[in-house]
Amino acid sequence: MILRPYLLFLGDAKTEWVAKTAFGVRDWLPGESVGQQRLPGCGVDLGLADLTAEAAVALGARSMLIGVAPVGGEIPPSWTPSLLAALEAGLDLVSGLHTRLGDVAEIRQAAERLGRTLHDVRHTDRRFPIATGRKRRGKRLLTVGTDCALGKKYTALAITRALKARGLDADFRATGQTGIMIAGDGVAIDAVVADFVSGAAETLSPDAADNHWDVIEGQGSLFHPAYAGVTLGLIHGSQPDAMVLCHDPLRQALHSHTDYPIVGLKVAISRFTEAARLTNPAAQVVGVSLNTSSLDPDRAQAIMDALAREHGLPCFDPMRSSLEPLVARIVSL
Amino acid sequence: MILRPYLLFLGDAKTEWVAKTAFGVRDWLPGESVGQQRLPGCGVDLGLADLTAEAAVALGARSMLIGVAPVGGEIPPSWTPSLLAALEAGLDLVSGLHTRLGDVAEIRQAAERLGRTLHDVRHTDRRFPIATGRKRRGKRLLTVGTDCALGKKYTALAITRALKARGLDADFRATGQTGIMIAGDGVAIDAVVADFVSGAAETLSPDAADNHWDVIEGQGSLFHPAYAGVTLGLIHGSQPDAMVLCHDPLRQALHSHTDYPIVGLKVAISRFTEAARLTNPAAQVVGVSLNTSSLDPDRAQAIMDALAREHGLPCFDPMRSSLEPLVARIVSL
Repeated sequence: MILRPYLLFLGDAKTEWVAKTAFGVRDWLPGESVGQQRLPGCGVDLGLADLTAEAAVALGARSMLIGVAPVGGEIPPSWTPSLLAALEAGLDLVSGLHTRLGDVAEIRQAAERLGRTLHDVRHTDRRFPIATGRKRRGKRLLTVGTDCALGKKYTALAITRALKARGLDADFRATGQTGIMIAGDGVAIDAVVADFVSGAAETLSPDAADNHWDVIEGQGSLFHPAYAGVTLGLIHGSQPDAMVLCHDPLRQALHSHTDYPIVGLKVAISRFTEAARLTNPAAQVVGVSLNTSSLDPDRAQAIMDALAREHGLPCFDPMRSSLEPLVARIVSL
Repeated sequence: MILRPYLLFLGDAKTEWVAKTAFGVRDWLPGESVGQQRLPGCGVDLGLADLTAEAAVALGARSMLIGVAPVGGEIPPSWTPSLLAALEAGLDLVSGLHTRLGDVAEIRQAAERLGRTLHDVRHTDRRFPIATGRKRRGKRLLTVGTDCALGKKYTALAITRALKARGLDADFRATGQTGIMIAGDGVAIDAVVADFVSGAAETLSPDAADNHWDVIEGQGSLFHPAYAGVTLGLIHGSQPDAMVLCHDPLRQALHSHTDYPIVGLKVAISRFTEAARLTNPAAQVVGVSLNTSSLDPDRAQAIMDALAREHGLPCFDPMRSSLEPLVARIVSL
């Protein structure tokens, strides 16, 4: 069991991009983080107090959560002193990285000596079945995207909140480490052995009541040269009735693979629909979610209005605009 | 290093389907298997001598290779006496199952005591990078299919042999356990953690000379509800210039998921091409490979002729017909 509240560790993160776990936890678990800890050279600020491990413990912190994900998912040696100090101060450690905390001998030994728990939420010892492809009861919505890291998790969380506010029975289903840290449960789908990805996705959103909605956090993109296979396996296992396409209107190329241009929304809607219909012939894209954080509100609204007209779909920014038109559409399914 | 020749272990296999590893090794490593070993109730015959482990050793065998894959990939307890006897007689063991040989305590202990090696080719301790999506030098051909287990490995092996016979520089690249046992190297792609599938595929066919061909064994199918993600990741990392579509003209539905009909070849060609062009805009399907083993030769030829006309592509059965029209097309790329 992961103990809260957290001290959020940012390492020497240079961009908000690599610190999206920390931002996700800050935004979706309000009041559950006592502060942040940054190494020299860190260029990210969560707007929380900068704390040593000891100061965080004095404020009630129970775990230090690694809120930054370096490319490759390794634990840089420069972090080791901070992680050891946190263990010494009385904190457990929570990580979503590919490398396990216990794979670093000093950290493993310190945790054993001090009786602390190391949580590697990306890893699971659960075994998953091969997907059956059989349609399950209940309704499912999956967020998909034209790239990674442009709002699929935030959109799914916001839709879950909006459906619940409308009185519907809905669950957020986490598929990534940050989502799992927020939901307290889920499957880090990209860490599953490839053969079992669709089976894990089937397990994640089991049979449910006919009017129940699972809102599933999407991963990657069908248009990403490294991750499209994960995306497709997640789509097939999720069997979505509805998909919401997440997009950043200012992004010209994939964030991590800049020689790959972002695909047009019309193509994206067509390809996601085509892919999803293998396991759910009724699958459809029901809305477009934009990340407009770098646009002024008028410009953002103009873009959303234009896209809504062009594609005949509700278009919204989950952090700035109403989800009512989308929810109305979902309810009608 | 896997020592040959082999004794091929068939357990109590009831169908050639579950013994396809044994058939693959028999067919593609001629002269490398001294015989077969079968348990009571086995309904499969490789046409090799039935041998005890001692008799196989007397004929020069160095390893016993498990040539049968039970559903679920476990090692049945009924095999243990035979596996122990092989170790006692002086043979190493080679397995492509999900369960590791060393996970069976008696087998692990006997191997340690006797100094034998246990080869679990499905498993690897190699770590793979995230795919870069950058185009590599050299040419690549990938076999793809309308379902699993209808000839993608045999087709790739036959094409490799035909290209070499033509004097071209070509390598077979194995992506499954049987292929690895034949090639002596490769990556069991469906056992790789999902995030790294495309990266593993990039590693499998590295930069090469401009006129070199890697012929890559395909896996799964874009139209399979459990494995399409593996297939897509392999396509993207392989960056194929050419794809050969493998198909069984008599199969009406997916072998393992019979509520999923086999897709038409026109749709399959279009969707595989569409998928592959993300990482190689020049990707094209260059031929259709049929598994006609259950058809008489005239009927098989009539079907191949009709499909060749319909799709404007060479159509062949790698076990019965000439690959010359296909090779001519490949050479022209």
